[in-house]
Amino acid sequence: MDNGTTRSQRFGRRRFLGAAGAGTAALLAASAARSATPDPAITEVQDWARGLGDGVATRPYGMPSEFEKHVVRRDVEWLTASRQSSVSFTPLHSLDGVITPSGLCFERHHAGIADIDPAKHRLMINGLVDRQMVYTLDDLKRFPGRVGRIHFLECAANTGMEWRGAQLNGCQFTHGMVHNVAYTGIPLRMLLDHCGVRTNGRWLLAEGGDAAAMTRSLPLDKAMKDCLVAWAMNGEALRPEQGYPLRLVVPGWEGNMWVKWLRRIEVGDQPWHHREETSKYTDLLADGRARRFTWIMDAKSVVANPSPQAPLRHRGPNVLSGLAWSGRDAIRRVDVSLDGGRNWRTARIDEPVLSPSFVRFYAEFDWNGSELLVQSRAIDATGYVQPTKHELRRFRGTNSIYHNNGIQTWLVRPNGETENVEIS
Amino acid sequence: MDNGTTRSQRFGRRRFLGAAGAGTAALLAASAARSATPDPAITEVQDWARGLGDGVATRPYGMPSEFEKHVVRRDVEWLTASRQSSVSFTPLHSLDGVITPSGLCFERHHAGIADIDPAKHRLMINGLVDRQMVYTLDDLKRFPGRVGRIHFLECAANTGMEWRGAQLNGCQFTHGMVHNVAYTGIPLRMLLDHCGVRTNGRWLLAEGGDAAAMTRSLPLDKAMKDCLVAWAMNGEALRPEQGYPLRLVVPGWEGNMWVKWLRRIEVGDQPWHHREETSKYTDLLADGRARRFTWIMDAKSVVANPSPQAPLRHRGPNVLSGLAWSGRDAIRRVDVSLDGGRNWRTARIDEPVLSPSFVRFYAEFDWNGSELLVQSRAIDATGYVQPTKHELRRFRGTNSIYHNNGIQTWLVRPNGETENVEIS
Repeated sequence: MDNGTTRSQRFGRRRFLGAAGAGTAALLAASAARSATPDPAITEVQDWARGLGDGVATRPYGMPSEFEKHVVRRDVEWLTASRQSSVSFTPLHSLDGVITPSGLCFERHHAGIADIDPAKHRLMINGLVDRQMVYTLDDLKRFPGRVGRIHFLECAANTGMEWRGAQLNGCQFTHGMVHNVAYTGIPLRMLLDHCGVRTNGRWLLAEGGDAAAMTRSLPLDKAMKDCLVAWAMNGEALRPEQGYPLRLVVPGWEGNMWVKWLRRIEVGDQPWHHREETSKYTDLLADGRARRFTWIMDAKSVVANPSPQAPLRHRGPNVLSGLAWSGRDAIRRVDVSLDGGRNWRTARIDEPVLSPSFVRFYAEFDWNGSELLVQSRAIDATGYVQPTKHELRRFRGTNSIYHNNGIQTWLVRPNGETENVEIS
Repeated sequence: MDNGTTRSQRFGRRRFLGAAGAGTAALLAASAARSATPDPAITEVQDWARGLGDGVATRPYGMPSEFEKHVVRRDVEWLTASRQSSVSFTPLHSLDGVITPSGLCFERHHAGIADIDPAKHRLMINGLVDRQMVYTLDDLKRFPGRVGRIHFLECAANTGMEWRGAQLNGCQFTHGMVHNVAYTGIPLRMLLDHCGVRTNGRWLLAEGGDAAAMTRSLPLDKAMKDCLVAWAMNGEALRPEQGYPLRLVVPGWEGNMWVKWLRRIEVGDQPWHHREETSKYTDLLADGRARRFTWIMDAKSVVANPSPQAPLRHRGPNVLSGLAWSGRDAIRRVDVSLDGGRNWRTARIDEPVLSPSFVRFYAEFDWNGSELLVQSRAIDATGYVQPTKHELRRFRGTNSIYHNNGIQTWLVRPNGETENVEIS
């Protein structure tokens, strides 16, 4: 399925929009609704009120309305050679709040979805430990110390197609390799303490049970700080495509380290330099050198509404909405601009603010039909400000695939259609 | 589908359990896992690692693993005359964390699920207002002030079959008419301000668009305080069985007031005394009089693991887990007992604590195979302590259906089987 359009478009002019500065008080006064006039939707009995609907447990496990069947994960056919080693994207433009529905969380597999019988699953911890251990799922579920945590997971390659210019027309495709989920599991520290890490233990190797045996080196310090071994997401068992029955949770760090179908953790004294941390998931710079072990996801944000898949449909009052996240610290502030970064205003951030987790931001604005250049920028509690793509390229060049957290620009045309553009 | 067993069982003796007092330090020392020994699950390559699995977007909208197909909503056939006016129950014993997956949220319909075309849906506000208004969904989505909130919703009849003794064998059936969801919508106050409530306006009538035209009277004060008109749950559009495309959110108050398929709000100067607040959803007392307008859900809790559908399977370390909630204020503390309320210890409450919302509690314990009488009691920030069923009956009698928040007791037998019992 190919729903991403391939385009490279640059948009060189900045525009100033008088309407963009309108205050919230004025917006509140403006009516978003029409007066009650004879409307068949009100005056006539609707079909759905004429008789009984479906009964309870018609769907023992419920699904969205048929009217929402366009709200799905999508992949981009030309992006990868096969769908077993590929990605599908979260439809951020159709969602709200900060929890990503489990059925819509983006997928990234290296050998397809491992279909694991939980009764046969084991987690082994070996290497530089006093006691090598093998845990069943039952063992983990009755291990003291279970906790729940809400965290974002972003693929290092999210927005990776945009390094050389605006490519993909929709925030599902430019920013949809991210989700935010409530996990339940055991702090990895507790399992490591149970095995007894030896004094020369400094690194972990996390290994997946899929045919790709996805492996990444992880510093012991991070594992002891806040990593989880998780079996539940959003209240229920992990979904198969998210590592059922067990995955690693590495808060704030790039998604490929959150090893899915987790089957083994080895303790060592140095990193392993495996494929996924040498030829892949490293950042090629302008001079040909590559950065390695760039684990942390810097502060980033995107406006999801309006965006190319969710154009503006009405003049007058509108609500701009989007997501911000940072792997370093809590999001402190989100600014939005309607004129390509000339003027900024502070967006409303919805409570509660957890970290590292999505925050949802809103900004009311009045649209008079002028062209808009919509942007957002996130600022985290370390003081880090999300850079422009221009600033990012100054340091990183354009050879990279990973860690593109530049400010995104959407052009809204007078007819409401919205496009992915770059401004110089 | 009838998965609830009809039984009435009383269990008169209290038992003291020496093991119940074991300290957490001792539990941490005790191993929940076995040493690594030759185990085919480790030493042999598993089927799922031999070849490629399913590719991305094989399911554009994902579903749980086939191994989890027993985790579903269930109804009880003998409870109601038809499934269109019935209830299905949340499988609390299979869940973790505080977010209820949308596909597993319990259902309660009066005329089945209304199948509403969102383009034809309208919300009308009329009655004692300066401006009667009709809002489309688009109008609401661009109305200034959108927010997200996490709230529990409990049916007033939850645990209602237990007034006269232990009836249903499973916390899905005794306590599963409750869920906890992240909503997105507009504060109702903002819509009412937009319409201009007249000075004699004191009550609202909320009316559903289903064939039952479910209607409830709601005091204006509550509407102005914290109610929402919501179109999204857990990140995506409301599910059909939860009122798609629009429902009322009435934090902390009984679920039937959270009118689904919401189509009209009328402002009046007194309550309407409709069917669902006279012959139904009132509390018949021992002397034949009935309490009315008992909207608030008092503090309540239940141990979900162990419970009849999730028996104990291992001696040694175990994790007791459950949920607590209160419609009055935040949960301050949860106590658990393993000996029928003789000895209590404070459970761990997982962060963040929101209100009114589920909190998840855990308590580690070591099981030596003795019989247990497992209980939990919730205490909220007002100081209210969840009562025993005996205390509750002293004031309320046994004629009631609604508002049974008494302490639940599970008997765990030496073989781990767990039953719904009452202790005198």
